[in-house]
Amino acid sequence: MMHAQEKFRTIHYGIGAIGVEVLKLALQRQDIQVVGAIDTHPHKAGRDVGEVLGLGRNLGVSVSYDAEIFLRNTQADIVVHCTSSHLISVYPQLLQAISSEKNVISSCEELSFPWVGSNELAPKLDRRAKEAGVTILGVGVNPGFVMDVLPLVLTSVCQEVRSIRVKRVVDTATRRGQLQMKTGAGLSPAEFRFRVSDGAVGHVGLRGSLFMIAETMGWQLDEVKETTEPVLATRRFETGAYVVDKGRVAGLQQTAIGVMGGREVIKLDLQMAMGAEDPRDVITIDAKPPINLKISGGVQGDQATAAIMANLIPTVMRARPGLLTMRDVPLIPFWGARVPWKEAAGDEHLRVV
Amino acid sequence: MMHAQEKFRTIHYGIGAIGVEVLKLALQRQDIQVVGAIDTHPHKAGRDVGEVLGLGRNLGVSVSYDAEIFLRNTQADIVVHCTSSHLISVYPQLLQAISSEKNVISSCEELSFPWVGSNELAPKLDRRAKEAGVTILGVGVNPGFVMDVLPLVLTSVCQEVRSIRVKRVVDTATRRGQLQMKTGAGLSPAEFRFRVSDGAVGHVGLRGSLFMIAETMGWQLDEVKETTEPVLATRRFETGAYVVDKGRVAGLQQTAIGVMGGREVIKLDLQMAMGAEDPRDVITIDAKPPINLKISGGVQGDQATAAIMANLIPTVMRARPGLLTMRDVPLIPFWGARVPWKEAAGDEHLRVV
Repeated sequence: MMHAQEKFRTIHYGIGAIGVEVLKLALQRQDIQVVGAIDTHPHKAGRDVGEVLGLGRNLGVSVSYDAEIFLRNTQADIVVHCTSSHLISVYPQLLQAISSEKNVISSCEELSFPWVGSNELAPKLDRRAKEAGVTILGVGVNPGFVMDVLPLVLTSVCQEVRSIRVKRVVDTATRRGQLQMKTGAGLSPAEFRFRVSDGAVGHVGLRGSLFMIAETMGWQLDEVKETTEPVLATRRFETGAYVVDKGRVAGLQQTAIGVMGGREVIKLDLQMAMGAEDPRDVITIDAKPPINLKISGGVQGDQATAAIMANLIPTVMRARPGLLTMRDVPLIPFWGARVPWKEAAGDEHLRVV
Repeated sequence: MMHAQEKFRTIHYGIGAIGVEVLKLALQRQDIQVVGAIDTHPHKAGRDVGEVLGLGRNLGVSVSYDAEIFLRNTQADIVVHCTSSHLISVYPQLLQAISSEKNVISSCEELSFPWVGSNELAPKLDRRAKEAGVTILGVGVNPGFVMDVLPLVLTSVCQEVRSIRVKRVVDTATRRGQLQMKTGAGLSPAEFRFRVSDGAVGHVGLRGSLFMIAETMGWQLDEVKETTEPVLATRRFETGAYVVDKGRVAGLQQTAIGVMGGREVIKLDLQMAMGAEDPRDVITIDAKPPINLKISGGVQGDQATAAIMANLIPTVMRARPGLLTMRDVPLIPFWGARVPWKEAAGDEHLRVV
């Protein structure tokens, strides 16, 4: 049983663009105590977290570069993991965290819905997590929310769902260089195609979102179609990181379509490009009743990803052991209420007024 | 452990407008077996369910009028409860269901967030449900989804939430007479105020939605302001149930506002009136990132309420015992996947492709 004054002790594994934002949020939260950080970047390893964040003061927590030893020797409740998009790259890191008997919340895109394909990593992680009695959950805004979880939540008020379509449009001109690079900004169309084929350009996770929807809906897809096309700049763009001349690649248009019985039952359409018009998230569910939803401006990805990672730390702490997905957990963060520990979850109902 | 061919056995307690729709859905579901129905309406009690639904065939399940005896003597997994809006009216019915060791999913509006005020009914239900080892959950579209659960789900991608506003506009001209009656259609403004004061007119649940949001966000409200005003007809309306002349009441405009530190941190604004323009659900969250969401046409209430009741039956069956709210359970219905029984939940991950 956790008492009100107790805190979730976090270790922040990876303090790049997203990791730093989560760390800043964690430092603001009264229910979180940051006890460690791990990063091998030479500008960060060995320095104090306060210095790395530019807080103007030391926090007494230095950035470790040896994850395995640090995790084994440090008492903590949960590892906040933000290093890479691909499951195969982060698998050893996740195993280190699990082996040290710590829960894990990760921004790894492929961990958002890892039960895809014939890979053996997901069942292995699940088994190891259960053996260690810890929970591991992949979260994010896309994949993990806008193009999969949110439409699935909306189906809870639907009868007879015939199709689910999601369109997300992001204007990357206002976003960080790393994201612009992933969308192929500045390349020629030929370079774009080459980079897509070797995996350097493209959004990781659309396929996972598609399968999360299909499996949850019980739809046995006959065919999955995926495309990644360049969006060409119709004018010159200059951002902090990139200059893109007219006619060069401004970003990408990526789709994943699921076909069942000759019908497109799922269509995910993601456009991320400099100067993309009318940034938005649109969810269209053909059902009874129909759902036609639009989030004007779209959900800002970096801010939202950092938010959901910090917000769901208590959710992971209360969840059952194993490799879970966003389908398996209550989606509403308890913002203010101090909630009891795993076993005791639900024994406490705060009464108001 | 539930095997794939096993079904959730349901008893449908109350087969009015909503109850009938849920029953029809349950009959279509392969994972549900309808084993009973209860209603005291003289046109329904004693007749076969198939006859009451106008299916043109008997189902071999007749409508019982004696709930207590029927519940005690019938083997079932869950009671699907759709009788009345007020907790105090349905409390004895819920206790009957719990005492017969059956889980309960209910459309009772006040059960959606019953931890409001100084009533002793919620803690009593919670205790009795835990003693019996069953789960009880109140669900619905409003309260229960559009004006409380959905905005709270959206906060999972937000940092620094400063305020939550929801506006729901329903054109009742296309809806059933019972709803029109609840909104005061056809009354004079003076009659409207009288009916509001005695509780016959007005939406039940806005206060519950407000408190669900406030408590979840950890906002200690200094003040709660509630208003219910008539919307007057600007032209004549004729529907199946009502004729409303110009100048008479076409419906209502109801608001609930939560104030904290001198600021309106929650505003719920519900308009339900014949001819209401631009029917919609709008959720505005002042946060980082901001969320500006619109569901064009709004979520159709009756269809959605029937849907969420049927969809969440497996969720209730898997949940821990006690009186739960939508905050406490995974919100994504497993549409197709056959999921294992309570204790075994999560031991089975279907792999796709």
